[in-house]
Amino acid sequence: MTPPTRRAIQKEETRRAVLDAAREEFERVGFESANLRAIAARAGVSAGTVLHHYGDKRELLHAALFDDLDATWRAALGNLGGGPLEKQLSRLTAAMFGYYQARPKLSRTLLKESLFADEPWATKFAAQIVTVTTEITRLAVEAIERGELREDCNPALLSAAWVSFFHFGQISWAQGAYPTPISLIEHLVQQHLQGLRPVKKQRSKRSVR
Amino acid sequence: MTPPTRRAIQKEETRRAVLDAAREEFERVGFESANLRAIAARAGVSAGTVLHHYGDKRELLHAALFDDLDATWRAALGNLGGGPLEKQLSRLTAAMFGYYQARPKLSRTLLKESLFADEPWATKFAAQIVTVTTEITRLAVEAIERGELREDCNPALLSAAWVSFFHFGQISWAQGAYPTPISLIEHLVQQHLQGLRPVKKQRSKRSVR
Repeated sequence: MTPPTRRAIQKEETRRAVLDAAREEFERVGFESANLRAIAARAGVSAGTVLHHYGDKRELLHAALFDDLDATWRAALGNLGGGPLEKQLSRLTAAMFGYYQARPKLSRTLLKESLFADEPWATKFAAQIVTVTTEITRLAVEAIERGELREDCNPALLSAAWVSFFHFGQISWAQGAYPTPISLIEHLVQQHLQGLRPVKKQRSKRSVR
Repeated sequence: MTPPTRRAIQKEETRRAVLDAAREEFERVGFESANLRAIAARAGVSAGTVLHHYGDKRELLHAALFDDLDATWRAALGNLGGGPLEKQLSRLTAAMFGYYQARPKLSRTLLKESLFADEPWATKFAAQIVTVTTEITRLAVEAIERGELREDCNPALLSAAWVSFFHFGQISWAQGAYPTPISLIEHLVQQHLQGLRPVKKQRSKRSVR
């Protein structure tokens, strides 16, 4: 493999600077009020360069949000550590909401746009969620192998349940129903896992109560 | 109580005609392409009348969607019949998706707008979901009283779980992931209810397997 050329490095640096500037500006003034000239100035490039790469403001928003969210999912999924599964899911919830809560305005836009984007972004955001559910399914399979969950538990369905609770928490939070949805999500996950424990464990737990 | 005046009746008839026309037109050409003049013509009123009552197209969209969705929720919640709870929730899911699937274009807009509306609609749509969750919580309490669910089951949390699965199904469907999300939602609900059954029932079921 040949090393990247000076030009390729510069191009990547410009891309990052523009996306960083876009995220800062969208968070500072909101998507509607943000303008491409201010973003370009913040990134130290011409408005023409931004337009050349991204076409319009909405395209820039999608690129900036997708890029950032993708990095956050990857980092969160890479740092779940060992089981039990309930702890791993708890770490995932906390890491993702740490990200949202640090960027409240941008996150509301992100949520709306990632759930209901037009193509090609719809496919990209959908593929991102498939990556997440595939990883959670893998963790659930491991939890079954460790004997934490019953053997007849459907790991893909458990994964879909986590995403359901995660979206519900996100939406409730974005609507202003909760200052943080983390505790709600954790309770929903706990209640869901209740029926998926092996019979023995469940009984011994109950007799302790 | 005095009977409604002729004028009040006419006003209500006009309101209904305009909202019906708006829904038809939004479904036919989509929200972006719909125009107030065509909606007014379809309702048999002047564009001025529509503007006077609703201000702009987005306001009309919200009024039309909220009105329709509210009637659908009420009818669905009023027709759940007797238990078991799983059957009641199944009827609720089927009734709501019957509505969405009959209006695919409008439903995508409805979903986006009802989850992320601006005020005053945000509060109205949120209150609508509170009505739904309150009703499901009541049904869950009855299921506990009938001995279908364990006494230590949290009925409000179960209600939040149903809404989570419902939203997840809606979003997956709107994104084009499934032709119908009903089976997905039912499986998620079943998995969730597994841990909430009384111990005896759970054991006898398992020994039958």
